[in-house]
Amino acid sequence: MPRLLLDKEKCLENIGRMAEKAGQNKLSFRPHFKTHQSATIGNWFRDFGVNRITVSSFEMASYFAAAGWKDILVAFPFNPESLHLLNGMPGNCRISILLDHPGALPFLEGVRRSIDFYIDIDSGYRRTGIRAEDPASIQRLLDAAQSNGRLAFRGFYCHAGHSYKAPGREQLEAIHRKATGDLQQLKQQFTHLHPRALYGDTPGCSLQEDFTGIDEITPGNFVFYDLTQHALGSCTLDQIAVALECTVTGLYPERGQVLVHGGSVHFSKESLAIGNRTIYGRLASMEAGKWHIPPAETYVTTLSQEHGILEGFGIHKSHKSRDWNLSPVTHAGLPERIRIGEKLHILPVHSCLAADLMKSYHTLGGEIITTIHS
Amino acid sequence: MPRLLLDKEKCLENIGRMAEKAGQNKLSFRPHFKTHQSATIGNWFRDFGVNRITVSSFEMASYFAAAGWKDILVAFPFNPESLHLLNGMPGNCRISILLDHPGALPFLEGVRRSIDFYIDIDSGYRRTGIRAEDPASIQRLLDAAQSNGRLAFRGFYCHAGHSYKAPGREQLEAIHRKATGDLQQLKQQFTHLHPRALYGDTPGCSLQEDFTGIDEITPGNFVFYDLTQHALGSCTLDQIAVALECTVTGLYPERGQVLVHGGSVHFSKESLAIGNRTIYGRLASMEAGKWHIPPAETYVTTLSQEHGILEGFGIHKSHKSRDWNLSPVTHAGLPERIRIGEKLHILPVHSCLAADLMKSYHTLGGEIITTIHS
Repeated sequence: MPRLLLDKEKCLENIGRMAEKAGQNKLSFRPHFKTHQSATIGNWFRDFGVNRITVSSFEMASYFAAAGWKDILVAFPFNPESLHLLNGMPGNCRISILLDHPGALPFLEGVRRSIDFYIDIDSGYRRTGIRAEDPASIQRLLDAAQSNGRLAFRGFYCHAGHSYKAPGREQLEAIHRKATGDLQQLKQQFTHLHPRALYGDTPGCSLQEDFTGIDEITPGNFVFYDLTQHALGSCTLDQIAVALECTVTGLYPERGQVLVHGGSVHFSKESLAIGNRTIYGRLASMEAGKWHIPPAETYVTTLSQEHGILEGFGIHKSHKSRDWNLSPVTHAGLPERIRIGEKLHILPVHSCLAADLMKSYHTLGGEIITTIHS
Repeated sequence: MPRLLLDKEKCLENIGRMAEKAGQNKLSFRPHFKTHQSATIGNWFRDFGVNRITVSSFEMASYFAAAGWKDILVAFPFNPESLHLLNGMPGNCRISILLDHPGALPFLEGVRRSIDFYIDIDSGYRRTGIRAEDPASIQRLLDAAQSNGRLAFRGFYCHAGHSYKAPGREQLEAIHRKATGDLQQLKQQFTHLHPRALYGDTPGCSLQEDFTGIDEITPGNFVFYDLTQHALGSCTLDQIAVALECTVTGLYPERGQVLVHGGSVHFSKESLAIGNRTIYGRLASMEAGKWHIPPAETYVTTLSQEHGILEGFGIHKSHKSRDWNLSPVTHAGLPERIRIGEKLHILPVHSCLAADLMKSYHTLGGEIITTIHS
């Protein structure tokens, strides 16, 4: 069975770097724990002064509350069927939810504890949230929420997830500038309520420097990073802290390909476009108990339920970034130097989904780390 | 939390239809259990005379052996790290493995029981297998395997998975004709070894009528079917036996969209192209305790870790199948007639992956069915 290896050292460096950036910018740091979903890894954040967290479901909130976290934001428009989980959360745990529509309020009449809420703001992602340009809807939601004395408005939350589809650095910066500007403006418009501004996807928090108007950042993926983040420029390949360890079970020299036991139930079907190719992972090389990124680029190019096909490419990278040409190079000799039974190490395209599927981690030091799914 | 609903009646009909087809064509029926991964659902096959099964890993083989199955094919090029699981299988369970390369044989020297093997044949899929046109490599593998007295050659196995990318019925039939022809020819070339021919992806076994030369079929997905199979013509929408039940948590009338709590950790990131759109699921309507397929086509068009966005489309289908045009129709009024807290029922693009992620089933009759992951 494939295993998900974790380089704890890189992971701690990733946490430390983000905590330091938050500190330098005088931002509260409320990391999103949906990426690792692990109480053990969660504990590593405490040494960096973290005492508040973000999750994406009340199942995760319950799990991390049991692990001792006392300030948890469930960053998902409130799901009415979670009411019993919300009411079951420990009394000494501060709970915040997201709202973006008055339709959720009737369900919250059943809440038996005080909770904070943030209004989800859409700065252009068009997934959830009230559009930043629509303060009237924000006011209507605030008015409607006022009848419930257990709900306290605390501020605005914005996830600018369209950053993941930004074609380049300039667009990434424009998304960041608009989102932080939107939040700043809303804070002014609703200044009498003293709203706080919560913000921060991993690309924005990794790449940008100006967080004017933001009070708290909530990135998640940075704890591991992955090939998607590398393609966006959020991290170097060396900062990616997880790799799937898969056994070679087939060699196909005539087409320059290798089969590993590792498929969509391990990597997830999340893909990345590299030039004209769709890829699901990139081969690293294991030396002296750590993985390294070889200059030769070898990718997982086909994925079915339990099968992964790797092939090597000649990469011709032009001066413009993201303007790549890939052509298969059988002379890379991939199947010639790899043997059946050998273990290969592959960086995932999307570490959150791979971690969710793999359900546990194996550190390079030999420790097994459990998750909510273990 | 989303739940995976199972219409047991449809599921039993799907099993019955495939068992009947196998019987009519005098084919042994060895269904692939990787789709459902459930001992309970496995048991339903026994009433249709099934006593041999296919799985894709030794973990699954161990699980189904514990559930009483006594003839199991692990249809994956032998993974050397599974040797201890292979040796731990019950002595009264007949085990078959796949081989396509002599490089796996040294690891099988450690096998402590008799096992059957099939040679994996590549008829054009180019995932695994020895090319059908290369009998010399087949002979070399047979020669190499002969030194291990515990390995008995039983025949050829072919999964023509390129059927999933066939652009139409004619190409599907051509793939089927080549694969069955390849197996027939190999049976003649190696007739002195009395090889059997195992074959059968769900599209081939659902759509084709001529199985000349085939001894045993091994389809898996047909037990549930899904939107991918419907697009290929393998099933009707009414035959799809699983649906994700997701709660509405957001309404966005200005863009004609609805948010459900149901994301890539529930559906998987497997997508389907419908016209110029990429979709991840299709909305069904629940009436009188069963789901139905409304004529209005509403799809999951965006999926992140826990978020799914649904929108309605005006569909203009031309006479040529697969030649569709989709245009958003906000006048479909999706967010107007749907309420926050309502449960929606969504047919998945790939039922195998959704089932693997959801880890259990809820039948329409209220029964909870566990899987290997429960």
